Amino acid sequence: MKKDYVSIGLLGLGTVGSGVVQLVENHQDELRHQLGCGVKVKSILVRNTEKERDIQIGQTFLTSNPDDVLQDPEIDLVVEVMGGIEEAKEHITKAIQAKKHVVTANKDLIALHGPELQKSAVENGVDLFYEASVGGGIPILRGLTEGLVSDRLKKVMGIVNGTTNYILTKMEEEGQSYEDALKKAQELGFAEADPTADVEGLDAARKMAILARLAFSTSVDLDDVEVEGISKLSLEDLHYGQKLGYTMKLIGFAQVDDNKLEVSVQPTFLSKSHPLSSVKNEYNAIYVQGEAVGETMFYGPGAGSLPTATAVMADVVAVIKNLLLEVNGKSAVAPRYESVLKSPQERFGQFYFRLHLADEVGAFSQITTLFNELDISFEKILQTPLNKGELAEIIIVTHTVSLDNFQEALMKLRDLSVVKDVISYYRVEGNGDK
Amino acid sequence: MKKDYVSIGLLGLGTVGSGVVQLVENHQDELRHQLGCGVKVKSILVRNTEKERDIQIGQTFLTSNPDDVLQDPEIDLVVEVMGGIEEAKEHITKAIQAKKHVVTANKDLIALHGPELQKSAVENGVDLFYEASVGGGIPILRGLTEGLVSDRLKKVMGIVNGTTNYILTKMEEEGQSYEDALKKAQELGFAEADPTADVEGLDAARKMAILARLAFSTSVDLDDVEVEGISKLSLEDLHYGQKLGYTMKLIGFAQVDDNKLEVSVQPTFLSKSHPLSSVKNEYNAIYVQGEAVGETMFYGPGAGSLPTATAVMADVVAVIKNLLLEVNGKSAVAPRYESVLKSPQERFGQFYFRLHLADEVGAFSQITTLFNELDISFEKILQTPLNKGELAEIIIVTHTVSLDNFQEALMKLRDLSVVKDVISYYRVEGNGDK
Repeated sequence: MKKDYVSIGLLGLGTVGSGVVQLVENHQDELRHQLGCGVKVKSILVRNTEKERDIQIGQTFLTSNPDDVLQDPEIDLVVEVMGGIEEAKEHITKAIQAKKHVVTANKDLIALHGPELQKSAVENGVDLFYEASVGGGIPILRGLTEGLVSDRLKKVMGIVNGTTNYILTKMEEEGQSYEDALKKAQELGFAEADPTADVEGLDAARKMAILARLAFSTSVDLDDVEVEGISKLSLEDLHYGQKLGYTMKLIGFAQVDDNKLEVSVQPTFLSKSHPLSSVKNEYNAIYVQGEAVGETMFYGPGAGSLPTATAVMADVVAVIKNLLLEVNGKSAVAPRYESVLKSPQERFGQFYFRLHLADEVGAFSQITTLFNELDISFEKILQTPLNKGELAEIIIVTHTVSLDNFQEALMKLRDLSVVKDVISYYRVEGNGDK
Repeated sequence: MKKDYVSIGLLGLGTVGSGVVQLVENHQDELRHQLGCGVKVKSILVRNTEKERDIQIGQTFLTSNPDDVLQDPEIDLVVEVMGGIEEAKEHITKAIQAKKHVVTANKDLIALHGPELQKSAVENGVDLFYEASVGGGIPILRGLTEGLVSDRLKKVMGIVNGTTNYILTKMEEEGQSYEDALKKAQELGFAEADPTADVEGLDAARKMAILARLAFSTSVDLDDVEVEGISKLSLEDLHYGQKLGYTMKLIGFAQVDDNKLEVSVQPTFLSKSHPLSSVKNEYNAIYVQGEAVGETMFYGPGAGSLPTATAVMADVVAVIKNLLLEVNGKSAVAPRYESVLKSPQERFGQFYFRLHLADEVGAFSQITTLFNELDISFEKILQTPLNKGELAEIIIVTHTVSLDNFQEALMKLRDLSVVKDVISYYRVEGNGDK
């Protein structure tokens, strides 16, 4: 199919939408060189067409009527950057039924309804791409589905939320409290007024569901992701972690063993030699371990207007290339497996825990006896006196143990009279592949 | 086109070739799921068909006659993993003329003859892909040409040679001499018996030529790459660098400003906050800066049988997908620009240099006067007495300066009678984007 230009329609003109309009405008020559045809933003759906906006939108038509985008026969491709779930889903469904290709940056929608939308896209012979939904400007979904397509991937670990990574960096490097670091992040625009989705790990969970689906070719529901946020983290634990050679990160973790899956988002102590440990501030990175490739990592800006717009535009370019070759709707690969989640007996890891112990003869040996009986051994131990010697603060890092076994140990630990309190526990990740 | 399986032919069965055979064998189910058809290695060109080999090659036919691969009408796709230049070029040319698609891991060949081979592939309507030629298992070429396709890239910095990165890591972290670290690398198989191509930067230069072509859509000859290796590095400079907050890396550097290009490979002091500074041992990473995306980095194993084979297989999968859609030979985009190299006046950077100065009154002020006159200011200065106070060892890091200006300063410095020796100088790179 030869065209002089391809017309696209936008749903939404917020942060990412404005970036897309800017890229289409400024990089028109490059796009024409790549594609052999131009790209034009024909119409944009907005709530209020009268609102003053920062960006030049040239000849583009603003409308508050969705059908001006969704039913325009000249528009081949709809870019959804409005966010939210129900309305976005309705529009995308309508676009697909009108045989329009769809590019979306909407992680919430794809995490919840990606598989059914993908199915509908395949049935209608159109492309549905969503590179921008995970990792902002990092081309991670293409990395998984094309670059590493021939490998059998075992593990994906991601720092996929910039807000929490910024907060943790400030806490660790500058000793700021969680509240102060959050406030600073809000001032800089890295955190929203209501930060719940970020700090409680929900945003990261959505991205991990999408990553796990593509990495392991399996169906993963958002409910399959176990989630714990960072709002309860204390500076004490961060300091102890540092003493032991760890950095605290909110890690999205997805692993497959014997076709069984675990996916979680949780605060995790990373060994300082792990490639993810040097990812700081608002940056994101996704670490991927494959049987053949070993360790790889993709690093970059996880959010922001222009970075996210580059990912949207990568999808737009892919759709248009398909359009010119008349092969749209052929690239989606259905998941190979129905996901089966691991039981706690099948999940393994190292754990850090901190407890207060009566500082009396034999107290510590009760702990070691208990763990011996459960066949759990220790990699690291740190002990500090507290309260004029009445209590000892003990930090222990276990060797690899099953989650089940570790939970039993915690329960029994709490029953010991010498144990005054189990303050905290976190997952620990070692050196990566080695 | 519907097929039950696609037959491929291999040229070469060394490290990478064996990895490809293994992946095709072990991941047949995954390949069939991805492609809807199987993949079969039909024949392999080897020098000696009788040689004992470590791998199972099943029903595959070994031959020492190139035409058994290149002229077999059942073979759609030729994978060149034999290395070398002239013979490989001849075979690939023949394959392309026989309308076979080609996947190669051969950086030497692509650096030297990539553009003409690509042109011939387009003319013959076949694909020529070479993801494995740079960065082993890291899907960096796809990252540039697909993931970041819509951005205007400004700068690519790569640790693209594992041998030298391993040697530098051992020198810095364990204080080993260059010779000892090289020996250790040879024992571990990270360095070849004749390490020249690696340690003198030639291998990295080939990869940088390929990266620069794709990142900036420009013609780049191997001769355009300025090359300096690591064989003359001293532990003294590494220690001084560490004191000043730097890590020494062999950096492939490619940058475009106002459509003018510089490409080099040289030992470079990186600020410890630069994303590349934490890339250790035999690992590779490519850092990419784009106008819109900001900073991204791709990290992984730069060599090795199975990692490199995953990159080859990513290309094989791409060729077969095109084959099934009947769109081969359409994805290559010709370079947009003829490369114009920057003059030394147009190249800017920070520089570290070390000199021996007579330890007498007014000596240092002669240095500062000279640099003042040339309008070069200093970011860091470190001075240590030497030889019982007869000499002072001075290390200076300049602010950003043109290469031209810095070279003039060095020349004039050598003319000063108080300057006993200019021992060394290296490029310095700061914090990345910030």
